[in-house]
Amino acid sequence: MASRFQSALRFPTGRSYPALKPSKPHSGRILGQRRFSISPRWQIRTKEMNEDLLKSLKINQGRLMQDIHHTCQWGTGERWGDAPTETGMTRLALSDTDKEARDWFKSTTEALGCKTTVDSMGNIFAVRPGLRNDKPPTFVGSHLDTQPTGGRYDGILGVTAGVEMLKTLADNWIETEYPVGVVNWTNEEGARFPLSMVASGVWAGSIPQETAHNTREVYPGTATMLSELKRIGYLGETTASYESIPMAAHFELHIEQGPLLEMSNKKIGVVKGVQAYKWFTTTVKGRDTHTGTTDLKSRADALLVAAKMILHSHRLATANSALASTGILNLKPGSTNTVPGDVTFSLDIRAPQDSTVEKMKKLVVADFPKIAAGEDVLGSNDACTFGLPCSVSITEDFDSPATTFHPDCIDSVSKAANSVLGPNSHNLVMDMVSGAGHDSVYANKRCPTSMIFVPCREGVSHNPREFCKEEDCALGAQVLMQSVLRFDRMRDERRISWKQEPYTL
Amino acid sequence: MASRFQSALRFPTGRSYPALKPSKPHSGRILGQRRFSISPRWQIRTKEMNEDLLKSLKINQGRLMQDIHHTCQWGTGERWGDAPTETGMTRLALSDTDKEARDWFKSTTEALGCKTTVDSMGNIFAVRPGLRNDKPPTFVGSHLDTQPTGGRYDGILGVTAGVEMLKTLADNWIETEYPVGVVNWTNEEGARFPLSMVASGVWAGSIPQETAHNTREVYPGTATMLSELKRIGYLGETTASYESIPMAAHFELHIEQGPLLEMSNKKIGVVKGVQAYKWFTTTVKGRDTHTGTTDLKSRADALLVAAKMILHSHRLATANSALASTGILNLKPGSTNTVPGDVTFSLDIRAPQDSTVEKMKKLVVADFPKIAAGEDVLGSNDACTFGLPCSVSITEDFDSPATTFHPDCIDSVSKAANSVLGPNSHNLVMDMVSGAGHDSVYANKRCPTSMIFVPCREGVSHNPREFCKEEDCALGAQVLMQSVLRFDRMRDERRISWKQEPYTL
Repeated sequence: MASRFQSALRFPTGRSYPALKPSKPHSGRILGQRRFSISPRWQIRTKEMNEDLLKSLKINQGRLMQDIHHTCQWGTGERWGDAPTETGMTRLALSDTDKEARDWFKSTTEALGCKTTVDSMGNIFAVRPGLRNDKPPTFVGSHLDTQPTGGRYDGILGVTAGVEMLKTLADNWIETEYPVGVVNWTNEEGARFPLSMVASGVWAGSIPQETAHNTREVYPGTATMLSELKRIGYLGETTASYESIPMAAHFELHIEQGPLLEMSNKKIGVVKGVQAYKWFTTTVKGRDTHTGTTDLKSRADALLVAAKMILHSHRLATANSALASTGILNLKPGSTNTVPGDVTFSLDIRAPQDSTVEKMKKLVVADFPKIAAGEDVLGSNDACTFGLPCSVSITEDFDSPATTFHPDCIDSVSKAANSVLGPNSHNLVMDMVSGAGHDSVYANKRCPTSMIFVPCREGVSHNPREFCKEEDCALGAQVLMQSVLRFDRMRDERRISWKQEPYTL
Repeated sequence: MASRFQSALRFPTGRSYPALKPSKPHSGRILGQRRFSISPRWQIRTKEMNEDLLKSLKINQGRLMQDIHHTCQWGTGERWGDAPTETGMTRLALSDTDKEARDWFKSTTEALGCKTTVDSMGNIFAVRPGLRNDKPPTFVGSHLDTQPTGGRYDGILGVTAGVEMLKTLADNWIETEYPVGVVNWTNEEGARFPLSMVASGVWAGSIPQETAHNTREVYPGTATMLSELKRIGYLGETTASYESIPMAAHFELHIEQGPLLEMSNKKIGVVKGVQAYKWFTTTVKGRDTHTGTTDLKSRADALLVAAKMILHSHRLATANSALASTGILNLKPGSTNTVPGDVTFSLDIRAPQDSTVEKMKKLVVADFPKIAAGEDVLGSNDACTFGLPCSVSITEDFDSPATTFHPDCIDSVSKAANSVLGPNSHNLVMDMVSGAGHDSVYANKRCPTSMIFVPCREGVSHNPREFCKEEDCALGAQVLMQSVLRFDRMRDERRISWKQEPYTL
């Protein structure tokens, strides 16, 4: 890797670099380390990198894949193939295995010369110094937690690509104008603690820390985020806030988790925003009664009513070009010969426009009580026995309005993608809107943000079989690093031309 | 109590009884105890009891209620009212609280002079000797285990009424021609170990003991019936079998668990049989995918398919005058933003005739795979998005054909009910078919059997609010005792007239 880049160094730039070396010898993992306490001169500054240099600076695909699979030893999930890496992941946030992955992230970035900070939500910020350390770093961020039956790429690719960027910068003695960092956000999935992107949400000031700390893990557990942060030793002293840990920008590499890139044979998605969504919890109360002795008309069957609601939400989504999904359903008492009197289920509604999500919400809030009361809604009672009414309550747990990413970040990603993919890039790059929420949604509230998507097999994610080709992981990591360097260079250019910092926050 | 009966003794019979007393003095709880080792003469034999005597022998309502509520200290459930007894029950089979209730049953019946036997399924048989102890006892039976959110009467009334019968017989120095007994059957509910009436089923030879012993508790537990029988010390050495513990008859008092008696202002149901039912487990397999990035047509949504199936089974039940109920539903992975790829649910189908249950089964087995494959069944796809197919498997876990109880037992119950309720009894007694399964279904396979129903409030059962009036509990217990005594007398009469035992098994 280094040789290829060094050969590039010799020709395109037409200038020579000082032969100075840092105070520590190059050897093994401490190659190119940089510490805040020592300030040798570096071989190349970002501002000195032209297009050819940027293009020829390559991340190491093998090393990236090694890091991905190395970290997947903690929380290995269901096996789906014969190869050692053909398993899913089950690394719930703040579990023992999440702690091991965090420890790896912290020690690895520290060994690369980064200063790490753990905040009061357990977010870990690793910062590699630049020339102007009085200014906020340009960050790469994603998450190391997974779904209970997740895969090896969702979140993990983004964090390990950030680490790979740090390694590549170190290997090649790159000196950025501003510090660059990698952040591992806590509980992005919202799988264990049912508030997704909660820790970036607290950082952005959108979610009160107390709410986050008191969030209880999903049934049947009883731990809270706070108790688990303490238990695994990741309750940091720094307040989780964009004020105490400011960012100049936030870039996130992620698998698409949908089928569009693969279906259209594209390699890189330049993500311009995220669709809107809301999460609801619906509770239906009927009456527990014996299945054998209660005729159909004497039942208040909460599960039958919930089944009608789930089907109805799907019909509403179909009619409104939206998405409606139920991923959690719990019932009580849970016995074959007892009609359930108590059913609670989640409802996840999404659409590109806020107005569509709002309309879906209104329809659900109007129709669910009718269904519970036994009224017919779009044929919900066809061929059914008229039973006793149930009651229903619907709470909105989470609201993520449609997000539009920052043009400067989108521009950096777009240019990086075209640079990396070369002359045929117009056939390989596409602009996209993310269907899923990501920590970038919250980051975008407090600093310029964009994302990079790479294809995943059949669009499958949140599944052990989630898979991204090695070359696609590497392409994404390459675009990620170049986006950061372009943004760093742009910050410097703007400072010179405008005599001011564009992003002082 | 005793005084009323003793006054009855003095007049209607016209004969005097010897003044002999048993070898132990009457005092406190050991009043009227009888032991196998001592055989004093008793004050009255069943065969000497005429209609008036039978009618005047009364159980003690206050003592019965005290026993019911005393045993409900073990496994007290959800509170629904202010009074001390206004709570439900949560006493799962072979739990620590079930052990405590069992210990009470064993020690109480032993203190009343019974010999107790625990069999290899944990069934406890308490037998009070009669004059002819070479013959099988006439049994009263029910169960002390409850649903997870059950009430204070289902099963408990039947066992405590049996104990009250033993106390009343002892108080009044009644000597039965044949032994009488009370049996507490294990895991009738099938709530913890999902095979209802499993232990009477093993006794009857209908369920292999190995199957029963290996039955695992419902998710998320891992214990088996065998491991729990051992753990709580109720794995008896006697083989659970009608051959090792024969019964001459089995009578069971139970709350109706339906609304018919209450709605028609009746007091006693003479139960002539039990409707047929089958239990199934349905597993739907789709694909876990991200809720935000997977459009509706790219989903194999196992929960949406399950919701359609649950609704469809209700429609089939409506069309066929049957019952269809889902009481358990589990899904994986269980995350708000993951479409579930794996859903398993129970299906309980019932009807008075075997043929109707069989027809329902055929319809379900034909239609569920169509729904899973995405075909429209009775409008199941109306206004829906056509998604990817799911697979489905349906297993039949349990089959209880329609049961017809024995005419001799039905006759004993019917006569007892009319005797107890007096001149207006034709307005207060009704013939019924049980909607629920009971241990009497299996008992009926090996000995003459019948049941007695009493009304419960609003027909509600398997619910903390399940409630039976004190006077109705007492009426039921009164009919139960008299049914046993009538059957005992009938056995003796037939022996004399036919010179043979009608029920030698």
